[in-house]
Amino acid sequence: MYEILDGTVLTGRTLVNLSSDTPDASRAASSWAAGRGADFVTGGVMVPAPAVGHPGAYAFYSGPRDVFERHRPVLALIGDTRYLGADPGLAQLFYQAHLDVFLTSLSGILHATALVSAAGADPAGFLPGALETLTAIPAMVGDGASLAAALATGEHPGDLSTALMMGATAEHILRTSERYGVDLALPAAVRSHYERAIAAGHGTRNWTALYEVIRA
Amino acid sequence: MYEILDGTVLTGRTLVNLSSDTPDASRAASSWAAGRGADFVTGGVMVPAPAVGHPGAYAFYSGPRDVFERHRPVLALIGDTRYLGADPGLAQLFYQAHLDVFLTSLSGILHATALVSAAGADPAGFLPGALETLTAIPAMVGDGASLAAALATGEHPGDLSTALMMGATAEHILRTSERYGVDLALPAAVRSHYERAIAAGHGTRNWTALYEVIRA
Repeated sequence: MYEILDGTVLTGRTLVNLSSDTPDASRAASSWAAGRGADFVTGGVMVPAPAVGHPGAYAFYSGPRDVFERHRPVLALIGDTRYLGADPGLAQLFYQAHLDVFLTSLSGILHATALVSAAGADPAGFLPGALETLTAIPAMVGDGASLAAALATGEHPGDLSTALMMGATAEHILRTSERYGVDLALPAAVRSHYERAIAAGHGTRNWTALYEVIRA
Repeated sequence: MYEILDGTVLTGRTLVNLSSDTPDASRAASSWAAGRGADFVTGGVMVPAPAVGHPGAYAFYSGPRDVFERHRPVLALIGDTRYLGADPGLAQLFYQAHLDVFLTSLSGILHATALVSAAGADPAGFLPGALETLTAIPAMVGDGASLAAALATGEHPGDLSTALMMGATAEHILRTSERYGVDLALPAAVRSHYERAIAAGHGTRNWTALYEVIRA
């Protein structure tokens, strides 16, 4: 952005930056634009390029609400607009948090497929069911609202699968990955969440207590 | 199992072990049972205890097909039965591979929520959308069959999001996690998949090429 706009008069213009970087980079860019008399809106486009402008496409935006509203009709050509607030870092933060869910799950799917395949089973017999396991997660964890409430209040009463129960499985997955020579980084990271939660005294609480050590 | 059955005459009986351990432990248990004249079937129950016997419940089984078929009516009381083959390790392998997908995605959701929360945004405003991102994955990666074919053949032509593009985002997520003091183990593991794939020359190929380094 800085290179492209170097030497351009920006006074009274509006910049909408849809590129991917950290929330801090978005905030720095917003200050830079303000110093040149320009309004600045940050966007995070949530679908890959071929899906832009098609049904289901959407993008997050943050920055001054009046500036965003003024340009919403044009931005809506990209996809549905989801305005998050004035902080120019919010759009990238939500973009990254969604991609965190997305990339982590994709790595999990590939890792699980590698396990099955290394043990001699056919990926084609595994993947359709594995994708069902993925899409069944909301049915198992409830809607986002109840999970958000548990995380916000720190209430993990132990009436669901506990950190100890699920941590035992995380340990088995790590050992089976070792046995078959499959990537250890991902199952070790997941196991570390359970280990740390159990060490912090959350073993008999719901698995949601992992949140307490992940955010720490 | 060994403790419970110590001293019990097992000749002509069938053991169905539904407990969770590694595939090798299942194979060892099957040999142990055979040495005592017992048939052995391994099962992996794919729903938490309260859901057993209810619609949507299912379990994987492996072991001798005739033994499994003989007891299928009783096992069907637990949930739908999915028979995988004769190898007694298969049921635990599939159980673990599905739980690999499940636990990895849950950790990813908690991690992403921790990021949003650490940056001052409300988890309640994030989680419902994050669960939609999760359930949208099959729509984005295609059905399991086409992904399985890409993984089986090693064809990652670069017509989808590439390892370089998605790896840049994985790097941003790691840096933002550092910035907000959130767990680094999980985003570092995911980033390591992209790093290794790019180092192996898969940068301009589809993200599915991560499979080549995850299974290595």
